[in-house]
Amino acid sequence: MSEQPKAAPSATRRSEASRRAILTAAFDLVGEVGYAKLTIEAIAARAGVGKQTIYRWWPSKGAVLVDAVLMLSEDRETRTAALPDTDDLARDLKTALRATVAELNDPRYDQPLRALNTEIAHDPQLAATYRERLHEPMQEIKRQRLRKAWKAGQLDTDIDLDVAIDLLWGPLLNRWLLRTGPLTEEYADRIVDTALGGLNPRSWLLPGRL
Amino acid sequence: MSEQPKAAPSATRRSEASRRAILTAAFDLVGEVGYAKLTIEAIAARAGVGKQTIYRWWPSKGAVLVDAVLMLSEDRETRTAALPDTDDLARDLKTALRATVAELNDPRYDQPLRALNTEIAHDPQLAATYRERLHEPMQEIKRQRLRKAWKAGQLDTDIDLDVAIDLLWGPLLNRWLLRTGPLTEEYADRIVDTALGGLNPRSWLLPGRL
Repeated sequence: MSEQPKAAPSATRRSEASRRAILTAAFDLVGEVGYAKLTIEAIAARAGVGKQTIYRWWPSKGAVLVDAVLMLSEDRETRTAALPDTDDLARDLKTALRATVAELNDPRYDQPLRALNTEIAHDPQLAATYRERLHEPMQEIKRQRLRKAWKAGQLDTDIDLDVAIDLLWGPLLNRWLLRTGPLTEEYADRIVDTALGGLNPRSWLLPGRL
Repeated sequence: MSEQPKAAPSATRRSEASRRAILTAAFDLVGEVGYAKLTIEAIAARAGVGKQTIYRWWPSKGAVLVDAVLMLSEDRETRTAALPDTDDLARDLKTALRATVAELNDPRYDQPLRALNTEIAHDPQLAATYRERLHEPMQEIKRQRLRKAWKAGQLDTDIDLDVAIDLLWGPLLNRWLLRTGPLTEEYADRIVDTALGGLNPRSWLLPGRL
């Protein structure tokens, strides 16, 4: 590794404090006023920094928001770096999906996460940032749990792990975002049972039925 | 039925022509400028009507857009009122999901449908309108096909049809909206096969394995 000139420790600390203040302000504000009315000016005022400080570090309010959600998920990742792993795959997936349900139903996260999701829908550049920095790391955490189950013979040998993840989490995200039904723990459990067992009759492969 | 005073036929025709012109203009414009920059003024100008005509019939640009997408789906429903029904459930579902993929990938629909979806995400009132007028009728068409398969013993007896539909279409909508991967026919086929067969090993229930 090449030597880089380093800022004095106190300057680094100040920078990090400003960064966290900006991201916290962005997260709080988008929950209060919505993404459309979120401005760099308002974030700067709330965080107690100059607008130029924000523009120096981020190209757009969308980029600030991705980092705000990322900071949140990093702070929480100290608790939840991996999916539950008790050797009972169905139970672990239900625990994981119920955690997603709780997060999406949490009023503190609802508006910021909606804003992030809808910005992604309209902004391919932001979508690429989101995919690389938030989606893919979460996807890998899920893959790890499923890969373990697959190795233990608990998943069909032909399974595409990414399709499996989409089958489990896609319905939750979709129901939450489009408000097409209540997002409950019972729904999460049902998704897990249905995805694991499949829509075909469970006795489909029993001799005599074929 | 009670008698209602009727407009003269020519006035009714003019009204209907204006209505279609407004909805077509809204649909085209949202594809050109995006939902954020869509205005009632611009729709009126494009449709060749006064702003007041639009405000008389719709409370907001979001409501106009719902009706625009509804008009489109009604125009197309003359072709596709039901899901394919060939007694081969897997094939029929693949045909249906491939049609959804084609629609979502169609540049004419991409922007208007994204705008509708993201407005729904932020507007519970619009979400209720969407649910009642667009989502629920489509859901019932899908339910009918699955109900028939269920009666024919092609689906597990315990299946919740709405959960089954979410498992099939949720991943598609989610991948499209959040741009988390390529939306291809192969992906659609894979979703159908995985949802029907389930994530568990296919030989799970064979005697000797239990």
